[in-house]
Amino acid sequence: MNDQNSNKKYSSIHYNSYLQLDKILNAQDLRSLEVGDNPAHDEMLFIITHQAYELWFKQINYELYSIISDFKGDKVNEKNIGIAVSRLHRILEILKVLVQQISILETMTPLDFLDFRNYLFPASGFQSFQFREFEVLLGLKEDKRHTYNNKPYDVVFDDKKKEVLHGLENNKSLFQLVERWLERTPFLELSGFNFIEEYRKALENMLNREKKAIEETDVLSGEFKELRLKMLGDTKTYFANILDENYHNTLITEGKVVLSYRATVAALFISLYRDEPILHLPFKLLSALIDVDDHITTWRSRHAQMVMRMLGKKVGTGGSSGHEYLSETAAKHHIFRDFHNVSTLLIPRSELPELPAELKTKLGFTFSTL
Amino acid sequence: MNDQNSNKKYSSIHYNSYLQLDKILNAQDLRSLEVGDNPAHDEMLFIITHQAYELWFKQINYELYSIISDFKGDKVNEKNIGIAVSRLHRILEILKVLVQQISILETMTPLDFLDFRNYLFPASGFQSFQFREFEVLLGLKEDKRHTYNNKPYDVVFDDKKKEVLHGLENNKSLFQLVERWLERTPFLELSGFNFIEEYRKALENMLNREKKAIEETDVLSGEFKELRLKMLGDTKTYFANILDENYHNTLITEGKVVLSYRATVAALFISLYRDEPILHLPFKLLSALIDVDDHITTWRSRHAQMVMRMLGKKVGTGGSSGHEYLSETAAKHHIFRDFHNVSTLLIPRSELPELPAELKTKLGFTFSTL
Amino acid sequence: MNDQNSNKKYSSIHYNSYLQLDKILNAQDLRSLEVGDNPAHDEMLFIITHQAYELWFKQINYELYSIISDFKGDKVNEKNIGIAVSRLHRILEILKVLVQQISILETMTPLDFLDFRNYLFPASGFQSFQFREFEVLLGLKEDKRHTYNNKPYDVVFDDKKKEVLHGLENNKSLFQLVERWLERTPFLELSGFNFIEEYRKALENMLNREKKAIEETDVLSGEFKELRLKMLGDTKTYFANILDENYHNTLITEGKVVLSYRATVAALFISLYRDEPILHLPFKLLSALIDVDDHITTWRSRHAQMVMRMLGKKVGTGGSSGHEYLSETAAKHHIFRDFHNVSTLLIPRSELPELPAELKTKLGFTFSTL
Amino acid sequence: MNDQNSNKKYSSIHYNSYLQLDKILNAQDLRSLEVGDNPAHDEMLFIITHQAYELWFKQINYELYSIISDFKGDKVNEKNIGIAVSRLHRILEILKVLVQQISILETMTPLDFLDFRNYLFPASGFQSFQFREFEVLLGLKEDKRHTYNNKPYDVVFDDKKKEVLHGLENNKSLFQLVERWLERTPFLELSGFNFIEEYRKALENMLNREKKAIEETDVLSGEFKELRLKMLGDTKTYFANILDENYHNTLITEGKVVLSYRATVAALFISLYRDEPILHLPFKLLSALIDVDDHITTWRSRHAQMVMRMLGKKVGTGGSSGHEYLSETAAKHHIFRDFHNVSTLLIPRSELPELPAELKTKLGFTFSTL
Repeated sequence: MNDQNSNKKYSSIHYNSYLQLDKILNAQDLRSLEVGDNPAHDEMLFIITHQAYELWFKQINYELYSIISDFKGDKVNEKNIGIAVSRLHRILEILKVLVQQISILETMTPLDFLDFRNYLFPASGFQSFQFREFEVLLGLKEDKRHTYNNKPYDVVFDDKKKEVLHGLENNKSLFQLVERWLERTPFLELSGFNFIEEYRKALENMLNREKKAIEETDVLSGEFKELRLKMLGDTKTYFANILDENYHNTLITEGKVVLSYRATVAALFISLYRDEPILHLPFKLLSALIDVDDHITTWRSRHAQMVMRMLGKKVGTGGSSGHEYLSETAAKHHIFRDFHNVSTLLIPRSELPELPAELKTKLGFTFSTL
Repeated sequence: MNDQNSNKKYSSIHYNSYLQLDKILNAQDLRSLEVGDNPAHDEMLFIITHQAYELWFKQINYELYSIISDFKGDKVNEKNIGIAVSRLHRILEILKVLVQQISILETMTPLDFLDFRNYLFPASGFQSFQFREFEVLLGLKEDKRHTYNNKPYDVVFDDKKKEVLHGLENNKSLFQLVERWLERTPFLELSGFNFIEEYRKALENMLNREKKAIEETDVLSGEFKELRLKMLGDTKTYFANILDENYHNTLITEGKVVLSYRATVAALFISLYRDEPILHLPFKLLSALIDVDDHITTWRSRHAQMVMRMLGKKVGTGGSSGHEYLSETAAKHHIFRDFHNVSTLLIPRSELPELPAELKTKLGFTFSTL
Repeated sequence: MNDQNSNKKYSSIHYNSYLQLDKILNAQDLRSLEVGDNPAHDEMLFIITHQAYELWFKQINYELYSIISDFKGDKVNEKNIGIAVSRLHRILEILKVLVQQISILETMTPLDFLDFRNYLFPASGFQSFQFREFEVLLGLKEDKRHTYNNKPYDVVFDDKKKEVLHGLENNKSLFQLVERWLERTPFLELSGFNFIEEYRKALENMLNREKKAIEETDVLSGEFKELRLKMLGDTKTYFANILDENYHNTLITEGKVVLSYRATVAALFISLYRDEPILHLPFKLLSALIDVDDHITTWRSRHAQMVMRMLGKKVGTGGSSGHEYLSETAAKHHIFRDFHNVSTLLIPRSELPELPAELKTKLGFTFSTL
Repeated sequence: MNDQNSNKKYSSIHYNSYLQLDKILNAQDLRSLEVGDNPAHDEMLFIITHQAYELWFKQINYELYSIISDFKGDKVNEKNIGIAVSRLHRILEILKVLVQQISILETMTPLDFLDFRNYLFPASGFQSFQFREFEVLLGLKEDKRHTYNNKPYDVVFDDKKKEVLHGLENNKSLFQLVERWLERTPFLELSGFNFIEEYRKALENMLNREKKAIEETDVLSGEFKELRLKMLGDTKTYFANILDENYHNTLITEGKVVLSYRATVAALFISLYRDEPILHLPFKLLSALIDVDDHITTWRSRHAQMVMRMLGKKVGTGGSSGHEYLSETAAKHHIFRDFHNVSTLLIPRSELPELPAELKTKLGFTFSTL
């Protein structure tokens, strides 16, 4: 390292300039003061809360871009998976704060909001570019979006920003990269072991045995027997989409399922055998994706609640009937819902097909002298 | 106080017997051990979490009963309102913990749940008597309930418990008592001041002035002018239900609104003039009721999420398709939604009709030398 | 309003420009990239987290300045108290988020921090001007501060900033204004009622009666009797500082107490009779101040924990042995501790001296037809 | 499975009997009603909150016992570590709820507590057996305890309970089992690689290079140079306890350190090379232990705060000056503090000694086709 760099490296820096606080803390101008008749005390809270949201959205997207680039390669190694899991957990902690922040904004009452609401037109959270970027990076497709006044979601952005979003939509999203990674899972047919066939057998044995036992037991009333059989399900209902590839593909065509057949099988394999050391991190990854999905939904619902509180049934400054729109997105804008559904396909450990020794060795590793 | 009592009063007690821990800590028997093939580690968590929920439900209902009995009388004095607000805030803190507890249960994975799920049939949270009691005390009516397998919600209880629930349904709920309290609000027509008439005038002036200004301004495109006018609303849409008693009553008949006309007017009055000292506590009461409603909804949504995670689309041990049922209740089982909607009717402080001096004195009080 | 204003008023604004996101989102430059050998991924989190803290500190101080200005006048009316309580509750919600944010930063591991820590020298949270402003506004005096490397806390600021802080220290802090407000409480000697004398009598009766009962009861062992008497206390220990003004003033001189005698008496009066409608808000104010104090302490402790985790016993970039310094401030930098201590002086409602009718009327108000 | 079992297995069960709610919900008797003059409304909250704590303590200890038994064997395999990490994370979620529950109890004001506090004597949280069990299971030794009225902590328990606690103290605690597990870490001297020697070399190179650069740079004032050198530390201060086994053992004898030398070296190795797949889980385990320690401390501090609020400086019903006692335990009762301190010993990844290929292969495993 030459003196030049060494000097740069050892130059001192102050908290203030490092954090560029002159920018951060001079970016709050009350519009009620600028164009209104008199300043509205609570507008400061409104501005700062939204700025805090945008700071965190920047961080979330920064993490997502890094995970996505790690998954773009042809080979995703263990380290990348470990890093992805840690970064998804970081995103989760951020999402928890985003939910908590709503309680701060709720200290502003509807009457206080009215003091400046008129001046904000047509500004609206709907114009948050980073939030759209976030949704697209995760894998929300335009055709799956709940529309807003029947206009494309990007109508509020300038061409440059539109282009960025379309660019992202054309690249692989986190969902697609994880799907591809799952499709490449080894072990599904290995050393003469065909996972899905073994699973089918185990499932049928289990269902038949249980059915027989339920039918034969004398401690269940007819109604209850019926109900238990219904709960038990059969290979033709719940399980059809994993046992029958064609059926699964029909569901995809009908838009009822998004995750490819092979990726679904891999996700099931990982969920069932996640006690095998080598599957520990892949399982953590799937769980983290479900967590992220759930936390986003919670944030959307709380956001919808807050808007209901502030505006009642009135339309928002963006012209959307805010509460209804947000509730719809909470109900529909799931990305990883198909991962949730793997739960439907699980069978108890006691029923799991034994893995062939050779495969087991491949899946295990040992830190043995411990 | 005679020695007898004095002795009782000074008798010593141990933490253990005071809390009856021999009962509390000996009420966990793993069914997977009792009737199953081998004990499931996570069943303990499942039992204890639900027991913690029931303990808190007992506390919530205990507070509700006390608030209800304070509001039953013909006269509800200031102290009662202050106490009701504090107890509703306590219920809110409990609801926050109930939401947080879901994260504990989520540390049990679907595969771990499968180890004992079969043995629970047909037990289900749907059989929680205290939760039904809670809903009924608040004011959830049977005809407003989302049904469960098309059966009445109380089908799972024995006759004694059914009777208790029906008894509660025939008594006044918290919603009804607050409604009656609002209907009795003084000040609405006092010292020649007719609130609703003054409000109508203020509203019309405001709407007309705003409309004119929007139409005349040259900084808004036609599309935006239209949107702003739409957002502004008119006395025939949003405001009709407060300006036209008959219309309001039609909405009630159609089941679109529950809160009576007079109570709605009173809630609006309190929300608009809540800066008047005497209206401070009544306003806090209305806010607390909205908060309780919102927190229950959050709990219902998180609960639905957790069930989705544990069972996917499978039906629950109670035979309900858990996730769908719970999501529906989160969307429909609101009690105080009409209070949220008062926000739609607010007008800015700057537009508020001035109160006559005499009334202002009635509403104010002074702690003056402060 | 002339067309000019009307035009300004109706001019449209975009979310992006309203929130000045070009400033907010372009204020993150990784120093590890600028002066270091290669960019450290986690530095972005480090910067954004601190920026989010500073945004919230700005909001907290904004609220404090508004409360302080409301309390500066000779007369503080009910509305001001109500507003102060709401704004303190807003500060509480913000403090909860500040505590929660620590969990986000903790997703950065010590090893990740090492990737850029060297480049930050000598920047340190100790250089946060807004945080010092916050402490001074509340009422933290320099002589009560735990020193940092034996240097004045403001050594890290330029002259202009030092001046601002000294200016604030010379103005009345929130603590001092609340103290003055309490000292002016009416009712302490009114309509022939001398609160402190009545309190002394009630207290002595209670203590004597209890003492006698404890001594006489035969269900307590000698050791327990002694302990109960010790717990009971006597007018010479706990209660001396309220019954003996001179003793109280000695404690002030010794720096053991800060709140003036008269203000302490008023705080006790408000706490004991807070069920009287007119005392409701004053009591809420005192509680909110205690809450704020407690939440700041929690934040300081969590902050100290995080530093311990990141650096172990090593000194921080500011040269302070971070963990020890922060733990000390958590233990010592209380502002409203004397308000906590009012709890020591409370007596059960059943023992409260009855207020004279005339005073009771002064304290009550009625919303009677309710 | 014979019909007998099958019948048992399929016998139906109700939510109510499964959770033994007749026990759980009939274990709340107000002492203010039983021995007092009239029932105190808030006593119910007091009882139920403490019962909820005890339920969760039971769950925490249940998890600790299971982790401990998994670590007792001579060999701890990967699966056990994975399970231990999950169960520690469960304990963390429970601890978060325990902290949150304090906010519920804080809705009871000191004046409300006075209505029944007298009747509780001498019951006290100090008499919670499960909490002591929890501390002992983790590894808190009696000689490290802050004493309570100078009496042994178990003085409040009957002989049977004392015996259980002493039994636990004589068995290996979680701390001791983790220490033993660390001492057995392989890889520390393997394939000619001597970790501590390599670390010493890397450390000295780094320190010398940095020192030279700091001394030579012309952008640092003398004062700052000094400070940076101080922060840098040298092999004789911070690092002595890892580079010099004898010094480490002296610290142990002086009671300044508890973790054995070899275990400390292993913890450092795991922390430095935790990016190696096989070290991922061991690293998660160490982090989880630190998290548990920190969350317990947070709970202790909040608990101390609440007691300060309820009683001020008065002694608690157990005769302890509650606030002071609890604050002391928050400051002193750390179990895994030595793991926090490993942070002091970390060096940047860029300075890490390269692992020999053979060892690297041992540490890695590959999920390669991904």
